[in-house]
Amino acid sequence: MRKTFDAELQELNAEMIDMAAAAEDVIDAVTQSLTSADHDAAKGAVEMTKHMDQMERDIENRCLRLLLQQQPVARDLRTISAALKMVTDLQRIGDQCANIAELSGLLGNPGSSQAMKDIRTMSQKAGIMVKRSIFAYANRDTSSAREVVDLDDEVDRLFQAVKHELVELIVNNRGEADQAIDLIIIAKYLERIADHAVNIAQWAIYCVTGELAG
Amino acid sequence: MRKTFDAELQELNAEMIDMAAAAEDVIDAVTQSLTSADHDAAKGAVEMTKHMDQMERDIENRCLRLLLQQQPVARDLRTISAALKMVTDLQRIGDQCANIAELSGLLGNPGSSQAMKDIRTMSQKAGIMVKRSIFAYANRDTSSAREVVDLDDEVDRLFQAVKHELVELIVNNRGEADQAIDLIIIAKYLERIADHAVNIAQWAIYCVTGELAG
Repeated sequence: MRKTFDAELQELNAEMIDMAAAAEDVIDAVTQSLTSADHDAAKGAVEMTKHMDQMERDIENRCLRLLLQQQPVARDLRTISAALKMVTDLQRIGDQCANIAELSGLLGNPGSSQAMKDIRTMSQKAGIMVKRSIFAYANRDTSSAREVVDLDDEVDRLFQAVKHELVELIVNNRGEADQAIDLIIIAKYLERIADHAVNIAQWAIYCVTGELAG
Repeated sequence: MRKTFDAELQELNAEMIDMAAAAEDVIDAVTQSLTSADHDAAKGAVEMTKHMDQMERDIENRCLRLLLQQQPVARDLRTISAALKMVTDLQRIGDQCANIAELSGLLGNPGSSQAMKDIRTMSQKAGIMVKRSIFAYANRDTSSAREVVDLDDEVDRLFQAVKHELVELIVNNRGEADQAIDLIIIAKYLERIADHAVNIAQWAIYCVTGELAG
């Protein structure tokens, strides 16, 4: 028996939430790998992103099938086309996490410098942004979506602070330059993760209002 | 009338070559934006990567359709599954170019420092790697594929040199630290583009030998 369109949309919702949960898990693993030079966490993060590639493909296929077979209009069309765009952002988040894990696997003792603390805070905030942006989509909650945009400003400020702190470190302690550069690149990836969360939040707003910001 | 399977494979080949050409064009635009602080080239690069997103989707759809309808075996199966993986790498190359363009659009006069020269060389080599890796796939030429792997070593060496040169710059001229950090991140993106070209080359080898290296 053919599933009803509503049931299909509910399944799509569930798949999106699953993929967002996977993105949160991988951000957690990456945060863990930054906290304690935990190389297993770094390896685990890379494995988790491979699973996200498959999730992306499954969701894309469902969306394309729904678009073709059901020719949805108005809000349903927005829901499906937004999902199609958002999975790309979720998948890119996975990519950035894999990139971070690759670098964090090479770090020595990450220590407890201010830069390291700020990087961990960036990582936590980025995780919250991803969670909240998908919550906004799943619950048609535009105020959560707007919170994500505000959080992005905090992440951007932290990125500037991290850069500044690490430039200080390079100037004062040349021997730590290599590690400092790796940390700057990690912070840049975290900043990109936050940007992807903002994209997701903007698609969530689009689902409700039909208007695409940004 | 239904197209023959061989005709479909030839079209797939042509689409892959087109997408590789698009990747080369966007790398050229990015190289241009690095050479002369050409902000139009940077903007153009971002636009070009959007077109690559659509190409990726079209090729993926063709591959999935061929896999489902034709149930290919042996070499044909390898050709199609390799294409499915390679488009992801081509698309990621587009992504990295967009990231570079975003940063290079913010650069002041890029100047003619050794680091800038090395970054341009990285960019040119990365472009050659992408071209050669797709040539290897399209012509089943494993020796071209292996050249790509060798070129990657050169790009990695240049990346280390760029980091070293820019750390020097930061230490000696604190006022240029921000631009130096942006250039290090750009060099990191170029290094990732070269990595994706290596992935493509390895898929090209897989098409011929059935063995996946790396």
